Amino acid sequence: NAKSNQDFDNDTANKYEERLSGLEQQFESSSRQVSLGGRLQIDFNGFNGAYNADNGGDFGAELFPRRARLSVDGERTDLEYKMILEFAEDTIEILLLRFEYVGFDDGPVIKFGKIREDISLDALTSSKHMALIERASVANTMSPYFRWGVSANQYFPTTGLRYAFGIYKNDAFGANGKDTDGALALAASGRLTWNLALDHEQLFHAGGWSSYREFGDEQLNGAFARAEIREPNVRLVDYSAGGQLVRLDYLSQHGFEAAWQNGPLLIQGEYAERRISTSDTSSELNRATYAGYYIQASYMLTGEHKFYSTSSARFNQPKGVANAWEIAVRASSMDATSDLQGTRAQSYTLGVSYYIDEDTKIMVNGIRSSVSGPGTLALVNTNTEGNAITARFHYDF
Amino acid sequence: NAKSNQDFDNDTANKYEERLSGLEQQFESSSRQVSLGGRLQIDFNGFNGAYNADNGGDFGAELFPRRARLSVDGERTDLEYKMILEFAEDTIEILLLRFEYVGFDDGPVIKFGKIREDISLDALTSSKHMALIERASVANTMSPYFRWGVSANQYFPTTGLRYAFGIYKNDAFGANGKDTDGALALAASGRLTWNLALDHEQLFHAGGWSSYREFGDEQLNGAFARAEIREPNVRLVDYSAGGQLVRLDYLSQHGFEAAWQNGPLLIQGEYAERRISTSDTSSELNRATYAGYYIQASYMLTGEHKFYSTSSARFNQPKGVANAWEIAVRASSMDATSDLQGTRAQSYTLGVSYYIDEDTKIMVNGIRSSVSGPGTLALVNTNTEGNAITARFHYDF
Amino acid sequence: NAKSNQDFDNDTANKYEERLSGLEQQFESSSRQVSLGGRLQIDFNGFNGAYNADNGGDFGAELFPRRARLSVDGERTDLEYKMILEFAEDTIEILLLRFEYVGFDDGPVIKFGKIREDISLDALTSSKHMALIERASVANTMSPYFRWGVSANQYFPTTGLRYAFGIYKNDAFGANGKDTDGALALAASGRLTWNLALDHEQLFHAGGWSSYREFGDEQLNGAFARAEIREPNVRLVDYSAGGQLVRLDYLSQHGFEAAWQNGPLLIQGEYAERRISTSDTSSELNRATYAGYYIQASYMLTGEHKFYSTSSARFNQPKGVANAWEIAVRASSMDATSDLQGTRAQSYTLGVSYYIDEDTKIMVNGIRSSVSGPGTLALVNTNTEGNAITARFHYDF
Repeated sequence: NAKSNQDFDNDTANKYEERLSGLEQQFESSSRQVSLGGRLQIDFNGFNGAYNADNGGDFGAELFPRRARLSVDGERTDLEYKMILEFAEDTIEILLLRFEYVGFDDGPVIKFGKIREDISLDALTSSKHMALIERASVANTMSPYFRWGVSANQYFPTTGLRYAFGIYKNDAFGANGKDTDGALALAASGRLTWNLALDHEQLFHAGGWSSYREFGDEQLNGAFARAEIREPNVRLVDYSAGGQLVRLDYLSQHGFEAAWQNGPLLIQGEYAERRISTSDTSSELNRATYAGYYIQASYMLTGEHKFYSTSSARFNQPKGVANAWEIAVRASSMDATSDLQGTRAQSYTLGVSYYIDEDTKIMVNGIRSSVSGPGTLALVNTNTEGNAITARFHYDF
Repeated sequence: NAKSNQDFDNDTANKYEERLSGLEQQFESSSRQVSLGGRLQIDFNGFNGAYNADNGGDFGAELFPRRARLSVDGERTDLEYKMILEFAEDTIEILLLRFEYVGFDDGPVIKFGKIREDISLDALTSSKHMALIERASVANTMSPYFRWGVSANQYFPTTGLRYAFGIYKNDAFGANGKDTDGALALAASGRLTWNLALDHEQLFHAGGWSSYREFGDEQLNGAFARAEIREPNVRLVDYSAGGQLVRLDYLSQHGFEAAWQNGPLLIQGEYAERRISTSDTSSELNRATYAGYYIQASYMLTGEHKFYSTSSARFNQPKGVANAWEIAVRASSMDATSDLQGTRAQSYTLGVSYYIDEDTKIMVNGIRSSVSGPGTLALVNTNTEGNAITARFHYDF
Repeated sequence: NAKSNQDFDNDTANKYEERLSGLEQQFESSSRQVSLGGRLQIDFNGFNGAYNADNGGDFGAELFPRRARLSVDGERTDLEYKMILEFAEDTIEILLLRFEYVGFDDGPVIKFGKIREDISLDALTSSKHMALIERASVANTMSPYFRWGVSANQYFPTTGLRYAFGIYKNDAFGANGKDTDGALALAASGRLTWNLALDHEQLFHAGGWSSYREFGDEQLNGAFARAEIREPNVRLVDYSAGGQLVRLDYLSQHGFEAAWQNGPLLIQGEYAERRISTSDTSSELNRATYAGYYIQASYMLTGEHKFYSTSSARFNQPKGVANAWEIAVRASSMDATSDLQGTRAQSYTLGVSYYIDEDTKIMVNGIRSSVSGPGTLALVNTNTEGNAITARFHYDF
């Protein structure tokens, strides 16, 4: 009896073993193949004054999908891939198409495809992790975000140093990725950062970055930034306001960034400038320089700590955050003026966020901006001040 | 021996237990994250006469993807999300981007995002559940289908009453979602229905709805409806035919609906009218009213009963339907005439559907429409009658 | 004790049985519903001379996503479906939307939807399985690739014969799918092939195809082919160069194909011609005939054999290929000249591919093309020769 019982056990066990292993393998292979995710942000923007100057500064508003993204990602051996598709109401864009080779032990991570150019702490902070609804004007002015190219980056834990460097096709800011011969217009961008973690509570971050971008005689876009709301009717930072657009041979830009985290408090700031080289070297805008900065403080009222990613040298939301409150404030300026044209905007933003869970967040921001510079009258007439209230429902899946 | 056997069992059991639980959890979490689905409808439209008046009324035809949709949906706690992307041959649209909060016990369901405006029984019936290939002209005239906004709805089982009410951005019918100040042009829509289920076989449904829509001085689209085929070369219901398009301050519309289900038989009808307020109040079209109606009967030859969804107050196909036949007939009218311009179309549709299974269906319809009104000559010359045959292969996954 | 042990076993076994079956069913049903996949190809094209004649023949270049596709597929009973969406940087297209009925035992496979027209061995070879980065000019000239329609195909193992025949909406080559009455402009295409497998090592393939295409008085596109790179600034095979575009009543085309596989070696060739019937029968281009051919050899240096799919009558990459090298060479010509206009291009391509695994491949090609014919000066001025280097990173998931 014990014998037959044993046999029964072994037979059963073997069969179960087979089925279990089969399922585990199937599941493993199905999971590894493709993972599907997404990001949905529904925003409200209400604004007046300068932001709605083409309607006499009256109250204007928009309700819109700020980001509607689907992503697929996965990995095989040492190669990871990710594609993000961004949908607007009736358009689509390949936002990111990244391959990442992680097979060099103690060596750099290599990325290629349509990847994020690694410049500006604020521009690098994911839209999931931002403490305010929109980024600072200087980050939106300087960052080309996602471009076709190849990059390398590496973090050295012993020193806290990290570098990132890449070569890209420059189809940002009005360039179309072609030089005057029909060859590639290129950009080269690099960033070097350092961090020092004093204890569980405190962390310093400092860095600098630089970017050189061929323009192939294309026209530099007039609006550098919208002044920290997404859907104003007038974009407030515009180098061409009251004057002319110019064609460029190239532009160069560089910036500095620093941050200090102390428990739930994070203070960060950046300064950056752009210099343009016009195709017509006799243009009065040749060698014009445009500079901007911001300083921002955020505080988790419920005590959580933001998470510093050493591999990316940027701050993410607290791990496992749920039922949490955050407040944030930013003072920001971007100057797109030259002698006879252009505007600068000074913006102040105050925001509060409620994290329902790691993937769900509600945000409300108030913004006040003022416009000045030679192009002011042309751009906003006498509506030199603008106020806005913005709100977001954020959902990741 | 028995002892060691027992040990062996327990060890094995524990290990299996662990692996099984692991798989169950993995599967559960992977299923909950994102569910991917889709709808594919390939249609043929053949037509002549009025439908092809710009080709002298000869036989015209089209073969096309009527609906090609991918959807992702899921839920976390009390919040459900769904996004539907609609692809045409070379365009894409976010058809729906819905968040649904279902956490109020005995309270309303709250929806927000790009959601279906809850008006008109025919317009609310999913394209999966329609007994005929296209909806009635009056439903296509009146319904804005999916719009950005927020709504609440609730069903009261004791009384059979259900209400739905929402506020939306009005970018339908030619409006662009903006008022003349650049603020939101809004729409407010509500529907109140009542149902009485007499027994397993019989159910009465009755309701009314109303919608008010700001236009912000934008132009009302000329074609109200195509007259119940999708790809005619001429759209037969057009208020501007033989006259002018007008800009609106707002429009208002309301309708009544009723249905009687008796086993496999469903008879339903609607009446609705639209009144427009032109921006130029001296326009002869100011206060023009356009009205339409339809009556439709469908019968499941194989005896199944359509399913009445009390939570949505509409009829779905029979649950678990497979290898089933249905016939349907509809008489329909939509009048877009005013004193000096516009057309009305009277349409008769006869259809047969074969349900292969719950997700796969073949449909064939015949349609005969006639056009009249002051704008007839301008729109269709002397081709006042049109005949069409349409066919569909429907597949959900 | 033995008894209770047995009870314990049976109880446990039953519970496990239940959970295992549940998981297996869930997994089966979730897998069967929708399978998600994709193809990502990032290409570099560098070229000069004729390819960049509008920039004086200087070196030009492009870096771009050659194919970025997402696909969903699945099956229910005997009906399989597949949809492929193709994304460019900011556009989308339903590339394929195929239903395939496989329920006729010993009968044909029926396909409908937007499906691949079954003509030309090179055009039918999947972009995953090509030995060179781009197809021969004659294949790109002749194949409409994916069109809306219905087709049947069947392979007869005893004879090695296979036929495919289909009727499609012709919206290729400049036609818009409509005839002059607004009805469908149709195409009818068929292919007949035969294969003989001598042993494990050797296989002969031969076939012919024909296609008739209504044009509905639309204009035939000028550029027939680009001459075997994807993103030149000038497309080298153009029947209208130095002359006029013409409207067509219809066109007809037919071709012959042959291949010989001997172990790792595959030699294949095709010849095809197109004859056009202009709407204006007095046009000097009426009855013009354009012909092209290629011969191509590929060799797996690491010894693998390509896989001949008898059901599709085409060659796929070796099964399970990994860590493998292939070289390939092609001579190709496409003649789009008539008496007074048009160009012909002669192209030579040499390529090497490294298969990392079945789904990942790196390819590098060198191409040299020369242009001649009456339209040469108009098309490329004196830059009658062009050189190119192309590279691809291919990834399927």
